[in-house]
Amino acid sequence: MPLGEFDVIARYFSRSSTRGDVLLGVGDDAALLMPAPGHALVAATDTLVEGRHFLPGTPADAIGHQALAVNLSDLAAMGAEPAWALLSLSMPHADESWLADFADGLYGLAERHGVALVGGDTVSGPLVVTIEVLGFVPPNAALRRSGARAGDLIIVSGAPGVAAAGLEELQSGRATFESKDARVRRFLRAEPRLALGRALRGFATAAMDVSDGLLGDLDKLARSSGVGACIDLERLPLAPELEAYPLTEQERLVLHGGDDYELLFTLPADHFGYIEHLAKAGGCSLRCLGSMVRGEGVECRRDGAHVNIAGTGYDHFAS
Amino acid sequence: MPLGEFDVIARYFSRSSTRGDVLLGVGDDAALLMPAPGHALVAATDTLVEGRHFLPGTPADAIGHQALAVNLSDLAAMGAEPAWALLSLSMPHADESWLADFADGLYGLAERHGVALVGGDTVSGPLVVTIEVLGFVPPNAALRRSGARAGDLIIVSGAPGVAAAGLEELQSGRATFESKDARVRRFLRAEPRLALGRALRGFATAAMDVSDGLLGDLDKLARSSGVGACIDLERLPLAPELEAYPLTEQERLVLHGGDDYELLFTLPADHFGYIEHLAKAGGCSLRCLGSMVRGEGVECRRDGAHVNIAGTGYDHFAS
Repeated sequence: MPLGEFDVIARYFSRSSTRGDVLLGVGDDAALLMPAPGHALVAATDTLVEGRHFLPGTPADAIGHQALAVNLSDLAAMGAEPAWALLSLSMPHADESWLADFADGLYGLAERHGVALVGGDTVSGPLVVTIEVLGFVPPNAALRRSGARAGDLIIVSGAPGVAAAGLEELQSGRATFESKDARVRRFLRAEPRLALGRALRGFATAAMDVSDGLLGDLDKLARSSGVGACIDLERLPLAPELEAYPLTEQERLVLHGGDDYELLFTLPADHFGYIEHLAKAGGCSLRCLGSMVRGEGVECRRDGAHVNIAGTGYDHFAS
Repeated sequence: MPLGEFDVIARYFSRSSTRGDVLLGVGDDAALLMPAPGHALVAATDTLVEGRHFLPGTPADAIGHQALAVNLSDLAAMGAEPAWALLSLSMPHADESWLADFADGLYGLAERHGVALVGGDTVSGPLVVTIEVLGFVPPNAALRRSGARAGDLIIVSGAPGVAAAGLEELQSGRATFESKDARVRRFLRAEPRLALGRALRGFATAAMDVSDGLLGDLDKLARSSGVGACIDLERLPLAPELEAYPLTEQERLVLHGGDDYELLFTLPADHFGYIEHLAKAGGCSLRCLGSMVRGEGVECRRDGAHVNIAGTGYDHFAS
């Protein structure tokens, strides 16, 4: 007797949550939720496609984790508190052990951040996972991409590029999914920066998460804000996990890698000390890369001299 | 120069809306929305997969319409007022004429119901469309599946089965997507019953939309409510669009067809006259099929005698 659609939902996607604001969760035509009074609702959705966003053979728990993490990272970038998630899962067949692992990865991350899975859809088809997350932020405290001003510092959290290195190791066959390699672990299980995002409320002038590469994403932030950006390559945070790589490779990974869920934000210089202190208390390092400038585009400098860097972020439909 | 991901969003999915409750729409990490004070948020998501929910070659405007309609139908079933939608679109390549038609179908329906598209994700992959809709309902007025009581009337709106007939005509090659055939039109462009859903607030004891077939969906409603159901087959609404079919075929289509977005609900008998009047004023016919009973399961009768009907609703992972 194969597992039916309703069994899949009942068995794997109906864990109860302790949130008191879920009036009606999984199992009806829609979920009924009570928004936080006076707050803006923050809504994001992201889709992962097998072979595109994750490699065939990726462990199901990592897919469950990533599908939610990429969405929570969007909420982090808005300074929001996550609350609820909906899952649309298209998969070729209902494999019980795959589903159990996927659900563990998804609920593990959800429970760490107090997120309740309140609904969704389960269909047969190619392996495509879409999650929608909903959260809250005081309306005037939301972080946007568009508020950076000339003179603001450009800050990035942690050390982006480590996940991209892990992905390349998997793609090239130098590592397997079971590897204990720190780069592969980061790629499969990076944690979104929700606490940092909330700490930036009222301080950061603009923020976004690094999903398509630091350089391309900084360009987007600068465009949205109507200013330019100037960064010094010698300030790039180079992770210890990348020290075996040549410096040019390290820089390439930091500038173009996604999937670490780091935050990129701008800040008036006099707030940096306070925010760095807050972040450090939460176990998160920050690095100032340069500052926003009048004009447009992103300029990279090395030892004060202009450097041309090829390539921007990932674009799904570019050739 | 192929169309990039960000061009796709800017060109096809950034139409402005007149809603004042969208603080920030498409283009940042997430949307910022102001929920209606004192209301519950209603959230639903549904996924359409090519070859499974729609046939290869389906006109793009019909896919855009259906992807939103199936979600709005879930909100109708809750008695909710729709407000916002997010779109996740996975497609093999960015075809401009396909995208223009898809967007027309989606926005056409969205604008008729005051829904703003506020965000989403566009990725390359197999053709899979996921939409999430968000809306509002006063918390105590939401329609659920679980409130039916023995003695309540069982009512269905309109005449389900017409869309299923259209689908079968397309599948068998008896009709094409361009056909003026009313059954094919219904399948491609059925309208969700949002006004009826809102009218049922405070009156219906349980409601759901008919998505997997009337008989299977009535069974779900009865189970959720902890009661049984008894319907008389001679009361089934038989649409004029089906009159060329033998009676047994008409009954099969009405009992097992989905895709018309009709509402199935239960009502204390003394409310039926008022609700029927309201529905008729909105151009929607209603039909009483029988009543909820103590016990469990769905009994079908013809001329008062028990009839066995094989099959229930559609299950994605059943063999």
